[in-house]
Amino acid sequence: MAAEIVNSPNLADADASDEEFPIDPVFALHRGGKMAIVGTVPVRDADDLSLAYTPGVAEVCTAIAEQPELVHDYTWKSQVVAVVTDGTAVLGLGDIGPEASLPVMEGKAILFKQFGGVDAVPIALACTGVDEIVETVVRLAPSFGGINLEDISAPRCFEIERRLKDALDIPVFHDDQHGTAVVTLAALRNAATLTGRSLGELRAVISGAGAAGVAIAKILLEAGIGDVAVTDRKGVVHAGRDDLNPVKRDLASYTNKAGLTGTLDEALAGADVFIGVSGGTVAEDAVASMAEGCFVFAMANPTPEVHPDVARKYAAVVATGRSDFPNQINNVLAFPGIFSGALQVRATAITEAMKLAAAEALAAVVADELSAECVIPSPFDPRVAPAVSAAVAAAARAEGVAKR
Amino acid sequence: MAAEIVNSPNLADADASDEEFPIDPVFALHRGGKMAIVGTVPVRDADDLSLAYTPGVAEVCTAIAEQPELVHDYTWKSQVVAVVTDGTAVLGLGDIGPEASLPVMEGKAILFKQFGGVDAVPIALACTGVDEIVETVVRLAPSFGGINLEDISAPRCFEIERRLKDALDIPVFHDDQHGTAVVTLAALRNAATLTGRSLGELRAVISGAGAAGVAIAKILLEAGIGDVAVTDRKGVVHAGRDDLNPVKRDLASYTNKAGLTGTLDEALAGADVFIGVSGGTVAEDAVASMAEGCFVFAMANPTPEVHPDVARKYAAVVATGRSDFPNQINNVLAFPGIFSGALQVRATAITEAMKLAAAEALAAVVADELSAECVIPSPFDPRVAPAVSAAVAAAARAEGVAKR
Repeated sequence: MAAEIVNSPNLADADASDEEFPIDPVFALHRGGKMAIVGTVPVRDADDLSLAYTPGVAEVCTAIAEQPELVHDYTWKSQVVAVVTDGTAVLGLGDIGPEASLPVMEGKAILFKQFGGVDAVPIALACTGVDEIVETVVRLAPSFGGINLEDISAPRCFEIERRLKDALDIPVFHDDQHGTAVVTLAALRNAATLTGRSLGELRAVISGAGAAGVAIAKILLEAGIGDVAVTDRKGVVHAGRDDLNPVKRDLASYTNKAGLTGTLDEALAGADVFIGVSGGTVAEDAVASMAEGCFVFAMANPTPEVHPDVARKYAAVVATGRSDFPNQINNVLAFPGIFSGALQVRATAITEAMKLAAAEALAAVVADELSAECVIPSPFDPRVAPAVSAAVAAAARAEGVAKR
Repeated sequence: MAAEIVNSPNLADADASDEEFPIDPVFALHRGGKMAIVGTVPVRDADDLSLAYTPGVAEVCTAIAEQPELVHDYTWKSQVVAVVTDGTAVLGLGDIGPEASLPVMEGKAILFKQFGGVDAVPIALACTGVDEIVETVVRLAPSFGGINLEDISAPRCFEIERRLKDALDIPVFHDDQHGTAVVTLAALRNAATLTGRSLGELRAVISGAGAAGVAIAKILLEAGIGDVAVTDRKGVVHAGRDDLNPVKRDLASYTNKAGLTGTLDEALAGADVFIGVSGGTVAEDAVASMAEGCFVFAMANPTPEVHPDVARKYAAVVATGRSDFPNQINNVLAFPGIFSGALQVRATAITEAMKLAAAEALAAVVADELSAECVIPSPFDPRVAPAVSAAVAAAARAEGVAKR
């Protein structure tokens, strides 16, 4: 790491002019962080101060104390989301702790703002116990309009999210699960449309039974997929295994209608869809054994489970998690619009119907541009967040979870 | 409250055009909150995204995991303070709860930015137990460069601050205590200079044994005041009373050298300084009984303990907490510069010496303008925060608590 950081003026031995140590653009960009707070009201003189602070502010406090719902009108609560992590499953880096996770949480926060107009605050916690995380987030919740859980390792992430959803009346959303699931479903819908098939005809295999894998399996089933099997390092998750944690036991109960029991490679024989969220690799032979016109979504970053050039030899549609290949499955297509829509109508939760609506709206943005190289919009398509936001807001109203 | 809030477009029965309900400027200003997040790096295209987010950000995370101190260089941690409250002692409103306290916390946050260039995030907690608050703030601390405690009721605030200072290696500062104490000391220093006296010659009486009163007593003693007595509703806090909580018992042990035992009015007879932080009232007779050339700092808001017009009949210097009289004792003169200086040198704490240095620097800003109507600068004097910040940074270095 030394080569990248010596341009820091705070490191005593640094010498930015040293030719051996060129300035690294990533570190140069991160210097001092990536975000700031701004006041949105003037504080130029005593009159301004008397409105924005004492004594004027006391009127607003009193009003909220008497009518609690007014907190949404007269503070930033309803436009700000806490991006909460414990730093245990950061990118592909694993358990690097809260401080080291902050650059990712700040990145997430600026994407919230840039793409969804949503303010977001990184909250990296110095605790990893389920009870501790849940009670801490419950205590923080009065200050925030929503909670985005991020990079918390499985299986703890499932219980943490479930308990927070029960405890809080603001949206709680674990993006590693549901953001990925929404974007994957959107891409799959368009791939099916492109090849003239319904989701009910498709059998999918998901490599990876962590946060993303479990959530993708659930949303695909909700959307009506024919069958889905999930694999972990030991092969297909099925009810006959005695090494499953409670989340995987549950998964085994509602997936794998076909009753598969073998390896990932065996499960892929004849499968219509491969969805990789494991970071492992899949041999070319296994891809070749998939059904005619299959879809390969090899989403591991930075190294897809199958190289897209190899996958294209056998698959009708290929997607990855990378920006340098077509069809990037990127969570930024989902979370800014989902929270924007949920906050706009003061949704008390983000329901399954809201996620399905988000996926449909995201898929529909592609419209006439639909092709094997375009089953999902670009993250920079300006139509994405407004379309997702509107669909999520409408679904929240239809579900009766919108407070306005 | 109805009259003030009907201009809200979200209230079903509101009618902004109704002549009976004019738009209240305070509520109009607070609509949607007073602050926002901004990204400080570009995210315009895939290249930007690859630097600010994946895959580039992983390099920064890895560097921090290997060298934890780098979190200060490559995230916003070292420029952001959590403004933490439990909503139990908000302004003069008392225990109004976390949501209703948010307008004050947002106000504080924008003052941090406007006056000190410090980013600040409101964190209003849904818990009031000392243990719960301490453990919650400890868990949040990785994300923040400092903790500003705000509007937490006494005596809990003392233990919470002490335990957080012990637990954390970032500055922890209860502004209701120390901000008020620093500004009061600065004004008192200048009042003494103006009237040709040393602090050692002065006997002060503080009305109010809460957060501000206790902290003011301590800093005045550290600064060398001759004597100080603190009064609560039952009169002077002295060792002979059997109704004192632990904080007041402690207070009795190091204040009131004169051995006073009576009421506030009795204590004021012959006193040189009155400092009101109680919200009570002081009769004109009691003010008249003070020593020749006395100082009256009647700081209760919005109603000073003695009206300044009355106080001026007897006192050489009169100060209040209000902006519409001379000599406003306002915490905004202290906390932005104190945190700015502490963060700049990555101080691990805000020590007594740093607070004394802040008071001295603040007093010195007045310089040649010193008069009975100007013992403290205006909150809008642009010299204040830079002077306080520089003095605090220098004191931190001298104390050995600066990490750079």
